[in-house]
Amino acid sequence: MDKNAPVGVFDSGVGGLTVAREIMRQLPGERIIYFGDTARLPYGSKSRDTVIRYSRQIIRFLRTRDVKAIVIACNTASSYALETVQAEADIPVIGVINAGARTAVCATRNGKIGVIGTEGTIGSGIYTEVMRGMRPDIKVYGKSCPLFVPLVEEGLLHDSVTDEIASRYLSELKGKYIDTLVLGCTHYPLLRSTLRRLMGEEVTLVNPAYETALELKKLLEQKNLSRQGACLLEEEKYQFFVSDLAEKFTSFATAILPGQVKETKKIAIEEY
Amino acid sequence: MDKNAPVGVFDSGVGGLTVAREIMRQLPGERIIYFGDTARLPYGSKSRDTVIRYSRQIIRFLRTRDVKAIVIACNTASSYALETVQAEADIPVIGVINAGARTAVCATRNGKIGVIGTEGTIGSGIYTEVMRGMRPDIKVYGKSCPLFVPLVEEGLLHDSVTDEIASRYLSELKGKYIDTLVLGCTHYPLLRSTLRRLMGEEVTLVNPAYETALELKKLLEQKNLSRQGACLLEEEKYQFFVSDLAEKFTSFATAILPGQVKETKKIAIEEY
Repeated sequence: MDKNAPVGVFDSGVGGLTVAREIMRQLPGERIIYFGDTARLPYGSKSRDTVIRYSRQIIRFLRTRDVKAIVIACNTASSYALETVQAEADIPVIGVINAGARTAVCATRNGKIGVIGTEGTIGSGIYTEVMRGMRPDIKVYGKSCPLFVPLVEEGLLHDSVTDEIASRYLSELKGKYIDTLVLGCTHYPLLRSTLRRLMGEEVTLVNPAYETALELKKLLEQKNLSRQGACLLEEEKYQFFVSDLAEKFTSFATAILPGQVKETKKIAIEEY
Repeated sequence: MDKNAPVGVFDSGVGGLTVAREIMRQLPGERIIYFGDTARLPYGSKSRDTVIRYSRQIIRFLRTRDVKAIVIACNTASSYALETVQAEADIPVIGVINAGARTAVCATRNGKIGVIGTEGTIGSGIYTEVMRGMRPDIKVYGKSCPLFVPLVEEGLLHDSVTDEIASRYLSELKGKYIDTLVLGCTHYPLLRSTLRRLMGEEVTLVNPAYETALELKKLLEQKNLSRQGACLLEEEKYQFFVSDLAEKFTSFATAILPGQVKETKKIAIEEY
């Protein structure tokens, strides 16, 4: 395996860019191939079978770009597809669930953890399963928040409507006296200030992106796959692909990432 | 062409069932094959190319069921794909735009018409184009309402949050003194009471479903394609297909349609 090969990162759309950004920060030497499945998003309301089929196609595409490892930067795809695609792949594949779960289990003092995410992620029960595997006495309360993604995509990050919806979604979790809340969808960190205000200062908000990048770093070191090559220009280092609306993606990515994104290529993902 | 063949009706998901329901009412003798693209919905935020590609695949699928005519029951697909697929097909294909536009043009007294729909439908400018073609002095004001579909799907049909969002979306149109409003997305008739209250009694709300069924009826009569056969049982008459989450679709369809939907079949639409 070529150490200088890129890392593949994928998501249903732009949300996974928050994970890519964290990888860029923590592993500044690594090359990244990012894919956002903008022609078929969202994944959060779709079935396990469909999300697995989509993830397999994306992994086949990423393999054509000779990636050395893959990060599933989407909570729904990590929930439904990680185990299946890990078993099929001969390169390392990691998701965002383990990282988020580990951080939350370390952070909680009273053993009560809330998880918010899409219907798919929450319905799969995977956060509960993984956190209980780490510490069996932990109590996990899941709540799906289907309107958060559309509200974020409409730009209503600081808005009375978002406050009202968030307050309804979170009231159940507040009633459970959780002291830690996992932001189990890549869009949710953009609502951090609303969530912080509603949950109060004493609740730890966990964004799995940070720890996922750390997990990738350790993994590459363990497998002796960390990139050693010379510095590259940003456009050689980071490449972006989507299945639809490449220009819209480019502007969004430029807003989220530290550098300017010059180009996003559109590919026909269903052919993979 | 077999008069007894079914009519194909498709949408990105469940919304087109409101059009199917209207066809069932007005053309009770006709058989229907319905397809909802639940694995790839929504269409409203996707590009023209992608929506055309998806529509072509669905038409290829419907052709395998020997349909005699096709109704595109989705405003976005009608906006982007109708002209292209009509030119390619050797059976009649109609959309929902012409019907909605004609009704609105007949209904307006002051010549000012509002249209609400997805980003795709409004961005395409097709309602304006078609209505101006019918009556060049008409003024058309379009407004995309991206949160309406998620709010409807979350079940918030009568809710303060929906009121607030609707009030923001409609304030621009109210300022234009429109006397007619086209509900240019199949989900929107479910928000009729909210829209009615905000727009006032004097504004005519146009739901293209009714007139689309009427257009289909005339078309079948003209082409001598109206079904003549004996009555059928509901389950022989109406068949439902989706690309994902068949059971969820079945319950939704049973809630919307007059009869009980027994079964929905899931198919792999990308193979068509």
